[in-house]
Amino acid sequence: MPSGAARYCGVVQISEQAERAKAASRVLATANRQRKDAALAAMAAALEAATDEILEANAGDVGAARAGGTGESLVDRLALTPARLADMARGLRELAALPDPVGETVRGWRLPNGVRVEQVRVPFGVIGMIYEARPNVTADAAGICLKSGNASLLRGSAGCLRTNRVVVAALRAGLEAAGLPADCVNLVEGGHEVTGELMRARGLVDLLVPRGGAGLIRAVVEGATVPVIETGTGNCHLFVDASADQDMALAIILNAKIQRPSVCNALETLLVHRAIADDFLPKALDALTGAGVTVHGDGPSRAADARIVPAGEHEYEAEYLGLDLACAVVDDLDAAVAHIRRYSTGHSETIVTADAAAQRRFTDEVDAAVVLVNASSRFTDGGQFGFGAEIGISTQKLHARGPMGLTEMTTTKYLLLGEGQTRA
Amino acid sequence: MPSGAARYCGVVQISEQAERAKAASRVLATANRQRKDAALAAMAAALEAATDEILEANAGDVGAARAGGTGESLVDRLALTPARLADMARGLRELAALPDPVGETVRGWRLPNGVRVEQVRVPFGVIGMIYEARPNVTADAAGICLKSGNASLLRGSAGCLRTNRVVVAALRAGLEAAGLPADCVNLVEGGHEVTGELMRARGLVDLLVPRGGAGLIRAVVEGATVPVIETGTGNCHLFVDASADQDMALAIILNAKIQRPSVCNALETLLVHRAIADDFLPKALDALTGAGVTVHGDGPSRAADARIVPAGEHEYEAEYLGLDLACAVVDDLDAAVAHIRRYSTGHSETIVTADAAAQRRFTDEVDAAVVLVNASSRFTDGGQFGFGAEIGISTQKLHARGPMGLTEMTTTKYLLLGEGQTRA
Repeated sequence: MPSGAARYCGVVQISEQAERAKAASRVLATANRQRKDAALAAMAAALEAATDEILEANAGDVGAARAGGTGESLVDRLALTPARLADMARGLRELAALPDPVGETVRGWRLPNGVRVEQVRVPFGVIGMIYEARPNVTADAAGICLKSGNASLLRGSAGCLRTNRVVVAALRAGLEAAGLPADCVNLVEGGHEVTGELMRARGLVDLLVPRGGAGLIRAVVEGATVPVIETGTGNCHLFVDASADQDMALAIILNAKIQRPSVCNALETLLVHRAIADDFLPKALDALTGAGVTVHGDGPSRAADARIVPAGEHEYEAEYLGLDLACAVVDDLDAAVAHIRRYSTGHSETIVTADAAAQRRFTDEVDAAVVLVNASSRFTDGGQFGFGAEIGISTQKLHARGPMGLTEMTTTKYLLLGEGQTRA
Repeated sequence: MPSGAARYCGVVQISEQAERAKAASRVLATANRQRKDAALAAMAAALEAATDEILEANAGDVGAARAGGTGESLVDRLALTPARLADMARGLRELAALPDPVGETVRGWRLPNGVRVEQVRVPFGVIGMIYEARPNVTADAAGICLKSGNASLLRGSAGCLRTNRVVVAALRAGLEAAGLPADCVNLVEGGHEVTGELMRARGLVDLLVPRGGAGLIRAVVEGATVPVIETGTGNCHLFVDASADQDMALAIILNAKIQRPSVCNALETLLVHRAIADDFLPKALDALTGAGVTVHGDGPSRAADARIVPAGEHEYEAEYLGLDLACAVVDDLDAAVAHIRRYSTGHSETIVTADAAAQRRFTDEVDAAVVLVNASSRFTDGGQFGFGAEIGISTQKLHARGPMGLTEMTTTKYLLLGEGQTRA
């Protein structure tokens, strides 16, 4: 219902582009795997062919960012190199090698009157992506949407616009070379009001996936009237139970905290059972301070190790995404679960324990996308799960929870096949 | 994160009740099937024990509705009888007999390093329901939420408040008698601002399901910041292809239009292939006018049968929910699909055809929760599908699409079970 929807929402700027994307999505929805994989290969080749042009545009974005005083860590995320561009092309080819989720019969049965029911997997249609300044996300998201049969409306950041224009032009050239509509992949340009229109384009945008910091996610959740999958923020806890193998706990804590501190599945808060706090915390502090981590703790944890600096409410709420770690001593499993319930963002929560009852209670009572026992939260990842591709990690409960691969970018429809049956 | 969420949203009135529901939901989430089924039986018994009190309260609501000038068809939906109350109790007992969706292992595998991954089915937590004036929905929704492990916040209509108060008091007494927290089932009272708070109680309400007319659904979709599943509006089409068995088409049209015209899976628009319009439409009009149906059509259909009255844009957009039917003559399958794309609400769309290619194209190209071939759209129903219980019919693509039973009222979480594995 494009025209009705556009009228109803007062959508002006985005609607034409979204209508074209919707038309393209109808071609794509019935394209078989061979056609989609050929398009992914052509998109990869087109990216490689445009290497010089893309790097030149990217140099423009990088220069503008530096001139505007952007910090070097953000500039690094924005900057492309020939190697990074080759990775983007390889990512598209890897998508071509993955199974096609579309067309799967999820389940099927016959009604008592003989009508055959089939629930089949189909694309959403048009997926909007709102994301921040990494140009590789542009190719990744376009590729994942295409492989799952969806047209994409890509809303990158203003600071990456020069790069995204050239990248999307190459991807669209690849699509056309492979005989699919260029409008399967679309860059959304314009001011903030365009983001608002994208979030409210009911009937045109079938799913919106924000990918970025907590502020972006919140703005989308508050402003959107189209269906949204929230991704990402992870205030991840690890509870060291009294029964834990302490060496195992230390190895998991270090890995979860420092293997890649800037990502959503990194450890942010350590909870230690009171019975072992005096023994365990000094060992943990040796390891953590040796790795450059600052630990912020409550009174009891600071009594156990004086290297711990004071923590307040803010420290327990924070997703540091860096070399800081909050810490608290808890009386027992109940207190650990209560702390997690209070501060968790529902991403990944871990217990280290040798006690089967504690393991069962923790996995039953903690409400998160991923609950881990004796393993690092760094495993909460589509690649680690074996999904081959990941669009993000859902922290909501509706539709998809945890790492999202190609299957999560699809919906289903029911087919009812009869020979004239009517209802009695 | 109850306290944080309440602070963040500025929720005042709803938050205390929702916090209590959240606490109850944690008990319920780990209650096994035996405990939940015992509670459903006790809730049914408590409803029966309160029969006199419920009927007296309902008489008060019915009297107030009549005094306020409410039409008799709405009064009939509001009115309880001993038989309808017995049906409500029987519905709860039938839920007890259904399998428990919670605890199912949806899938499981091992990572290359030996970490075991299990995706298990778990309740959402707290489900909000906003619905109109049928008191049986109060017991149905409470029961479906309970069986699927969820606490419920039930927001019925003001006109049903006396009845709902007594019904919910009985359900809560049943819960307590069975040893589960009364706060598993909660009636939400108060003015319109309370509905707004319910729609924005992020962190407290895990899912909101509006059940009612298009206006209610739209208000919830526009105003909600908690996850929503849209249910229900059905502008359902049926296309009679040139190759159709015309007697079969007539039987399906009559069944879909008049077996129960007031429901969302009833037929609202008939599309007829031009090649058979002059032959088929007079037969269809004989049958439809004989059944009291008024047919509103375009020029070509009125040329085929003069009993058809003029139709404009409004007739094709309308969900009549009564004995009216829109009609149009279309050139071919492409034109039928184009008409459906323009006006469909994505509920149930039907083709009657003997042509395998037309069947395949229609099922591939029409984007709806249920696409039917040679069968009545009245089969789009949880009971007909064999689900045993139905909370509504989802017309959205996220999470659940089509009839929703107990399974659709759950989410999943991943458990990762290791022996100290860390990420390389």
